[in-house]
Amino acid sequence: MRNIDEHTITRAFVQRLDRCDNPRLKEVLIALVTHLHDFAREVKLTEAEWMAGIQFLTRTGQMCTGARQEFILLSDTLGLSMLTIALNHAKPPGCTEATVIGPFHTEDAPPAAQGSDIARGAPGQPLDVDVTLRSTDGTPVADADVDVWQADDDGKYDVQYAGLKERRARALLRSDAQGRVRFSTIVPTAYPVPTDGPVGQMLVATGRHPWRPAHLHFWIKAPGFEPLVTHLFRDGDPYLDSDVVFGVRNSLIVQMPENPSKPGRHLLRHDFVLNPTQ
Amino acid sequence: MRNIDEHTITRAFVQRLDRCDNPRLKEVLIALVTHLHDFAREVKLTEAEWMAGIQFLTRTGQMCTGARQEFILLSDTLGLSMLTIALNHAKPPGCTEATVIGPFHTEDAPPAAQGSDIARGAPGQPLDVDVTLRSTDGTPVADADVDVWQADDDGKYDVQYAGLKERRARALLRSDAQGRVRFSTIVPTAYPVPTDGPVGQMLVATGRHPWRPAHLHFWIKAPGFEPLVTHLFRDGDPYLDSDVVFGVRNSLIVQMPENPSKPGRHLLRHDFVLNPTQ
Repeated sequence: MRNIDEHTITRAFVQRLDRCDNPRLKEVLIALVTHLHDFAREVKLTEAEWMAGIQFLTRTGQMCTGARQEFILLSDTLGLSMLTIALNHAKPPGCTEATVIGPFHTEDAPPAAQGSDIARGAPGQPLDVDVTLRSTDGTPVADADVDVWQADDDGKYDVQYAGLKERRARALLRSDAQGRVRFSTIVPTAYPVPTDGPVGQMLVATGRHPWRPAHLHFWIKAPGFEPLVTHLFRDGDPYLDSDVVFGVRNSLIVQMPENPSKPGRHLLRHDFVLNPTQ
Repeated sequence: MRNIDEHTITRAFVQRLDRCDNPRLKEVLIALVTHLHDFAREVKLTEAEWMAGIQFLTRTGQMCTGARQEFILLSDTLGLSMLTIALNHAKPPGCTEATVIGPFHTEDAPPAAQGSDIARGAPGQPLDVDVTLRSTDGTPVADADVDVWQADDDGKYDVQYAGLKERRARALLRSDAQGRVRFSTIVPTAYPVPTDGPVGQMLVATGRHPWRPAHLHFWIKAPGFEPLVTHLFRDGDPYLDSDVVFGVRNSLIVQMPENPSKPGRHLLRHDFVLNPTQ
């Protein structure tokens, strides 16, 4: 096919996939490219805008490291991440809802024993966490892997400190026979997503603030249950209604009051309900 | 806004742009994200597919260097580049048509004098090029900058040879008072776009060949005329109907016969017609 124009190029692309032997890949790619072409036609994309897009995506890829995933941050701030989660996590009533994984999960969270202090020096007000994992019928879920990570009082994750080699305010725990996971850490605070990269430039250019309401991240994996990636948000945070990544669920907002029996320390109690996979 | 679901997230995103004071950016971004969300909803994008997309885009960005632009190659192979060109280059009849710039243009093409050999050792059959630049009324266009680049007989551009420091089969020329540009180079051959990166993996996964029909690249800039980025394709090439980047225009296919007066050398004569900007 020669002399393809703006009206025939989408059909020409689809024809090129005639020999694609992966039906799902073909379906996804045809839908993606059809929308991409429709977008360009609708806005009459200029060549300068096209080049700005190429350069934006290039900078976004080059900002990624083992400890920073700028494309996930882009997906998060464009609402694609929460949309994908919503499409894939229709759960029975009562199950804990999922939210975004965000760009700061790492594969190397240090294992931590029940009751230990996972803050390991990260600045913040002490917080005692006591959560229980249950199935939809109330049965405790023992021996689950519970990956926890969070920002500190300065609004930073460990991996955002240049030169900090240790992991802190980040740990891998295991639920006990009663499904409990207990540890101490610090009260999370609201923080801006990183604004020193292309995503930050996009937020400034579009008049958006970069803030996320205070939260702890959890990634819970237990045999026989759907993995759960979620947060617990701190009630009263001013950014609960304008989370830059669209991640807040009312059911995930919890209290972290001062612990009456331990002055100066806060307390978080919560039950997670996991979705059995049959 | 809390408890955003797959049906309300696109509206939530649009609301976040309330303070964007750049109307065109707002228009482009709303159209882009609406199509992105519609795509995800239509195919019910899975989380594994989402992550595969994140990783694909990250690898694509990290493949880019000063001499390799994998995102342009991705845009080219998805038909977005030719679509953008078609949307922006409606020209008066008789003007030379535009096509893709491709990923191998560099900013440092060495200046070359009229009549010189720009191949500078690049392997291939000798080709004498004699082209003339004209306006739509036939007037010669003098003093135009003419950037030329091409692949060699091994199907490679200079920048694809690790360790090759010189530029070859690449030059910046200037049209003379009669609008002529004369130089010698090599006959271009068909070649595959680079397949050692994410775009190559996409082509293999979708059953597409990576070939481009043989061509010379031209980027012509002259005061008072729309810049022209185009190719001259060699007639008879087996890939003219299936160019992997959808770039072929019938009007850009030319003969490169053996030169009867110079045995062993080929000849290319062509007139480029530039579009006056008024």
